[in-house]
Amino acid sequence: MRCVKCRSTAQVEVRRHHAAFCGPHFLEWFTAQVERAVRRERMFTSQDRVLVAVSGGKDSLVLWDVLLRLGYRASGLHLNLGIGDYSRESQEKCEAFARQHGAELLVVDIPAEYGVGVEGLARLSGRVPCSACGLSKRYLFNRVARERGFHVVATAHNLDDEAAVLLGNLIAGNTEALVRQAPVLESTHPGLVKKVKPLYRIAERETAAYAVLRGIDYVLDECPNSLGARSLLLKEALNLLEREAPGTKQSLYWNFLEKLRPMLRSAQEPAALRGCAHCGEPTTAEVCAFCRMTERVAQGLRTRVAVRGRAAPEPALASSDPA
Amino acid sequence: MRCVKCRSTAQVEVRRHHAAFCGPHFLEWFTAQVERAVRRERMFTSQDRVLVAVSGGKDSLVLWDVLLRLGYRASGLHLNLGIGDYSRESQEKCEAFARQHGAELLVVDIPAEYGVGVEGLARLSGRVPCSACGLSKRYLFNRVARERGFHVVATAHNLDDEAAVLLGNLIAGNTEALVRQAPVLESTHPGLVKKVKPLYRIAERETAAYAVLRGIDYVLDECPNSLGARSLLLKEALNLLEREAPGTKQSLYWNFLEKLRPMLRSAQEPAALRGCAHCGEPTTAEVCAFCRMTERVAQGLRTRVAVRGRAAPEPALASSDPA
Repeated sequence: MRCVKCRSTAQVEVRRHHAAFCGPHFLEWFTAQVERAVRRERMFTSQDRVLVAVSGGKDSLVLWDVLLRLGYRASGLHLNLGIGDYSRESQEKCEAFARQHGAELLVVDIPAEYGVGVEGLARLSGRVPCSACGLSKRYLFNRVARERGFHVVATAHNLDDEAAVLLGNLIAGNTEALVRQAPVLESTHPGLVKKVKPLYRIAERETAAYAVLRGIDYVLDECPNSLGARSLLLKEALNLLEREAPGTKQSLYWNFLEKLRPMLRSAQEPAALRGCAHCGEPTTAEVCAFCRMTERVAQGLRTRVAVRGRAAPEPALASSDPA
Repeated sequence: MRCVKCRSTAQVEVRRHHAAFCGPHFLEWFTAQVERAVRRERMFTSQDRVLVAVSGGKDSLVLWDVLLRLGYRASGLHLNLGIGDYSRESQEKCEAFARQHGAELLVVDIPAEYGVGVEGLARLSGRVPCSACGLSKRYLFNRVARERGFHVVATAHNLDDEAAVLLGNLIAGNTEALVRQAPVLESTHPGLVKKVKPLYRIAERETAAYAVLRGIDYVLDECPNSLGARSLLLKEALNLLEREAPGTKQSLYWNFLEKLRPMLRSAQEPAALRGCAHCGEPTTAEVCAFCRMTERVAQGLRTRVAVRGRAAPEPALASSDPA
């Protein structure tokens, strides 16, 4: 197999594009795909301050790397979830990347802030771990971005992630989530920061190839709570289709974005947002889900995180800003 | 495993309903599921004349069997597709079933009517076989039903079929097909007969179990053109999900029907229908797709099926009406 650009031996095949690339031309193609996603979807400009959600895994460090190389003003935000060695190692990978690239990394330490890690938040509030974790991420990424003056939060969801989430939402008939699923979610409330997914055109195995070719050091382990997760099963089913019919995931997701989602949006009123009565963050309820969770946890713990008038105190930020 | 009704040894498990049945109680459950589908979706009443599309395979003969046992006025319509031994054997199974049950069977012999079988129709009109076959079926089922005074056409699409077609339409972003996919398609034009799918609540392995328990003799072979078909791949992907999460197919299809499809319908204007300039059948074009196909074929053949003013002559019907 030969590189479609230079005819040297190909290192990475991209079957859905009927293409294969040598290492350097793959990195060029990958970077151009991200740049195209950012520009075509008007995600942000080179003037905007971008907060990249970095877990320490390959996708988020690859995203941060590409955005920095493209010259964007990209800082990282890592949440220490308090999941034993996995979280310790994840934070170390983020810190090492930030040091090497001279980039700003913000860290919120969830056990230090809320008394327990996300597994504890889940247990004490009667949620499953992935639910408590997802809620904490959505809440903290938005809040930290707004309070620190970022224009946009970038997450590293790739094509495989998006196709699997889409299939799951279709199976569950979750029309509200379907309407919200897009590479760009504009701010619809002064308290909501714009969210973007610059890797939505990129397959998971392509971010892995990019990480290897660039020598990016990332956490190899998956989160221990994700083993056997439904998302992995959905990805397996989509991989089966992709093997026989390359481009299936892309068709499913892009056709959804171009054709179905506009029809669903036109048929569904957007939910009205207001400020949470406790923390002021945008929510559809009187008290936001994060405050409801952390209040239950604080009552359970009766520790230093006991509610101080506001359930969700301003998260303290560790910063490794090189400046 | 025990029958949930009588605690005797179970013969058939229905995992998505957390149930298992002995043979007699499975047949009772199966029949009740079909009856419920017919009544709840107002498919037809015991006064209506129902034309069942019968291929000779298990699903269609099972459907015919259940409808006759429930006391509905169900005649069969078999299309001989002209696909060698497969078609000969298929017609024989339909004829044997009709004889045993004292039921009326109508037969349209496509090679006799149009000079060639569906594979020839496909080749001479530049279509793939499954496309020519599907087009011929839709056209002839509707036309024969209307001309012979039937109130409704019943096809034997089961839950597996519907879920796979749905997934395929979602991947392809085929919004028009999505809006049309339902267990009941009401007549929207005087020339269009109502279409119904009474097995939409039943899984494929359940129709197989019903056929075995009732001793229904059906064609075991799949159509030779369906080998490696995309529908089989989609079913394989859904089976993978169903194994780990029983009920996945049902959730996907039922949630689509209840939540997504109404939103899609409200966002899309129905296509305007008019009479085909050649045969008078309802179509969105000036000349319907079936006439365009058979005209090309007739020109190619220059045989006795040469266009006689109307491209699609009234199909001759063989009838094994026992009356």
